[in-house]
Amino acid sequence: MENDIYFVQLFDIYKGLLTEYQRELFSMRYSLDLSFAEIAIETGASRQSAFDGIKKVKEKLVEYENVLKLKEKYDAIADLSENFSEEQKRALDDIIGR
Amino acid sequence: MENDIYFVQLFDIYKGLLTEYQRELFSMRYSLDLSFAEIAIETGASRQSAFDGIKKVKEKLVEYENVLKLKEKYDAIADLSENFSEEQKRALDDIIGR
Repeated sequence: MENDIYFVQLFDIYKGLLTEYQRELFSMRYSLDLSFAEIAIETGASRQSAFDGIKKVKEKLVEYENVLKLKEKYDAIADLSENFSEEQKRALDDIIGR
Repeated sequence: MENDIYFVQLFDIYKGLLTEYQRELFSMRYSLDLSFAEIAIETGASRQSAFDGIKKVKEKLVEYENVLKLKEKYDAIADLSENFSEEQKRALDDIIGR
């Protein structure tokens, strides 16, 4: 579950780099909480290919994070901004959340 | 030239998403300042394919920026941090530059 949250955060950051189909697969699993069998029915693919597809999306997300380290950077900025004024914090959140 | 700086900045941010060959092409053009004819000799490809290859890299960089807007975000954070203390500024620079 902890692990799921990590992937959902990576997805929020990097979804624009995924294909439409990859975004759909990921959302079926992590937003709609469908089983692999249910995703297979939705996509008309086999259970195995639903499983493989989502595994591949997660690998892509980890690859993007390894290269760009955006979650790491955003987390570090959030930690740092704990000592900032409310106004500074809001301004930073606003930029990162764009 | 102004335009070149823009692409060099995008390259610095997104180079990890490019292939080794794309990074080499871009560096030959923008770090070593080689002509397309010289790049063609270096890579053993035609001048046209050196030109097309670099055009494609630049398109990729723009595509990444359109999706992730990291240059826009980093610039906005730099602007914002003008009003921060020296210590806060250094800490933010340190995170973004990782």
